[in-house]
Amino acid sequence: MGYTVAVVGATGAVGTQMIKMLEESSLPIDNIRYLASARSAGKTLQFKGRDVVIEETKETAFAGVDIALFSAGGSTSAKYAPYAVKAGAVVVDNTSYFRQHPDVPLAVPEVNPHALDKHNGIIACPNCSTIQMMVALEPVRQKWGLERIIVSTYQAVSGAGMGAILETQAQMRSVLNDGLDPKDVEANILPSGGDKKHYPIAFNALAQIDVFTDNDYTYEEMKMTKETKKIMEDDSIAVSATCVRIPVLSAHSESVYIETKEIAPIDEVKAAIAAFPGAVLEDDVAHQIYPQAINAVGSRDTFVGRIRKDLDKENGIHMWVVSDNLLKGAAWNSVQIAETLHERGLVRPTAELKFELK
Amino acid sequence: MGYTVAVVGATGAVGTQMIKMLEESSLPIDNIRYLASARSAGKTLQFKGRDVVIEETKETAFAGVDIALFSAGGSTSAKYAPYAVKAGAVVVDNTSYFRQHPDVPLAVPEVNPHALDKHNGIIACPNCSTIQMMVALEPVRQKWGLERIIVSTYQAVSGAGMGAILETQAQMRSVLNDGLDPKDVEANILPSGGDKKHYPIAFNALAQIDVFTDNDYTYEEMKMTKETKKIMEDDSIAVSATCVRIPVLSAHSESVYIETKEIAPIDEVKAAIAAFPGAVLEDDVAHQIYPQAINAVGSRDTFVGRIRKDLDKENGIHMWVVSDNLLKGAAWNSVQIAETLHERGLVRPTAELKFELK
Repeated sequence: MGYTVAVVGATGAVGTQMIKMLEESSLPIDNIRYLASARSAGKTLQFKGRDVVIEETKETAFAGVDIALFSAGGSTSAKYAPYAVKAGAVVVDNTSYFRQHPDVPLAVPEVNPHALDKHNGIIACPNCSTIQMMVALEPVRQKWGLERIIVSTYQAVSGAGMGAILETQAQMRSVLNDGLDPKDVEANILPSGGDKKHYPIAFNALAQIDVFTDNDYTYEEMKMTKETKKIMEDDSIAVSATCVRIPVLSAHSESVYIETKEIAPIDEVKAAIAAFPGAVLEDDVAHQIYPQAINAVGSRDTFVGRIRKDLDKENGIHMWVVSDNLLKGAAWNSVQIAETLHERGLVRPTAELKFELK
Repeated sequence: MGYTVAVVGATGAVGTQMIKMLEESSLPIDNIRYLASARSAGKTLQFKGRDVVIEETKETAFAGVDIALFSAGGSTSAKYAPYAVKAGAVVVDNTSYFRQHPDVPLAVPEVNPHALDKHNGIIACPNCSTIQMMVALEPVRQKWGLERIIVSTYQAVSGAGMGAILETQAQMRSVLNDGLDPKDVEANILPSGGDKKHYPIAFNALAQIDVFTDNDYTYEEMKMTKETKKIMEDDSIAVSATCVRIPVLSAHSESVYIETKEIAPIDEVKAAIAAFPGAVLEDDVAHQIYPQAINAVGSRDTFVGRIRKDLDKENGIHMWVVSDNLLKGAAWNSVQIAETLHERGLVRPTAELKFELK
């Protein structure tokens, strides 16, 4: 009656949260399988108190799998997700690899669940920084329309994986316990594991997440632009982002400025956000109530506050948006997509393979 | 031949940096005097290797003083700065108390030195977050004009004083060494010593600096709006800010979006900023060169990078602006004002007292 669910990248920062979200999920799961690199194969991780032996991710590993959650990096998804689809699974991919593929829905279940209906075996989970912005802005877009978005992010290091968390803690200890200047601590991962130079994040702010593109924006910034247009199904929404890493372990914060098509009364904006599923209004400045990263950790919700009119533009609104990047930004949104697929009767083998087998 | 210079608030985070800036200054100083609260009176601090006994700040403490640098909080400036002027001193005030007073110039020496010419005994040093933005934007305003500014700040804890630095370090140690959840660490100062509730800053981002005003912006945010208009002498420039404290000890970072009156080619913007005194262009994304807080600490300069066109607005430009908030943001800008007063022959007693003696 239930599904066989595979978690690809089970040992990672997101993978371990995916397991937790699956344990708490309403999804009927008969069988769980953990896949990872050859290095982790043979080790065990638990599922609902029971040991599960980790298998190596291979082309042939997906026989019998109904739902495969991928979070092991873009190259792993590129290589193995098509084999999972060919074996009859539906893939929910948390990497950026398939997000702009025309045959792949990019889904935030509260925002565009209808996008799932036409899936071809792979559904992409958007970037963490995009997801929480979508949850905050979709209720505004629905009522007043969106003309433009300018966003500056305050992103946690866990978005760069387990290694980045450990590196941040080690750097902080070097400064606080050993008296090192933050300039002199060892840095091997941030701002981007895929780039040449690495800089300390301890007591620093790094205006680079992912590598740079040709237009001087980073890939992370361009993800926010492109993914917003695809999820909201409107290429006319202007989106420019500045993505910044700060010394926070988990939960991303965002300073979001929007211009609406029609003038939106602030009280009504607050009410619309408060009523939207997955969004929580935390906005009472008289009592110093506004979203905080440390309070968002562990929650599936997106917290929105500091909502106020621009001082000059009648259709301009500023807000502060915070969510746990490992949960709504990744693991929970992926499992929530799987739950939505189940509710809509969309967990089924795909007839025609639209993705290249490499 | 030289001046008698007084530092009011000599023991504070900014005061100690003022002393350092005065030691390195070209200003002819015959006599230095340190003033502080009664609690610190009688203790000593050095000036160029020589002990100076700290005196209590009093109405009568300013006899013989030519230049008085105030950085001991708004209420101390409100009470004692007029007495210093009455005694014949020129006051450079680093607090917000006199900044919007119509008889008080608000000065960033690279940007509006002419404002000093009509001083009435008190010159205000702008807010740290405003100063560095002015240094970055004045060269752009001069050539292409400025229509609007949207800024999101990433501010260091040292802006809230020595106590905030110590609190941040203690909170970080509680998390890293004692295993406390960041939610559970002791917080007594931030986000604002003057507000009711206090929240942890360790591994957090606090979207509150100073207390809230009636329009749901904080005083810090409204400082950026009002001070920009006064310094640039143009009330038509639209400025909206979101001010955020992050776990950085010193140096503020800012994500600044501007719209210019005339379209500004990016290469020319970079050249104009590079040529502006006090500004340093750090912008070579192909080599991962952009300003970083940890690199700005100890420098008097303002570092500007990540300069790029908005993706949709032809006259829109984004940039990343970083400077040491204790130096250019406070101590150095104050001493630089004193040097500029000296160079312009403006260090002289004021005939008519325009400020209330309390």
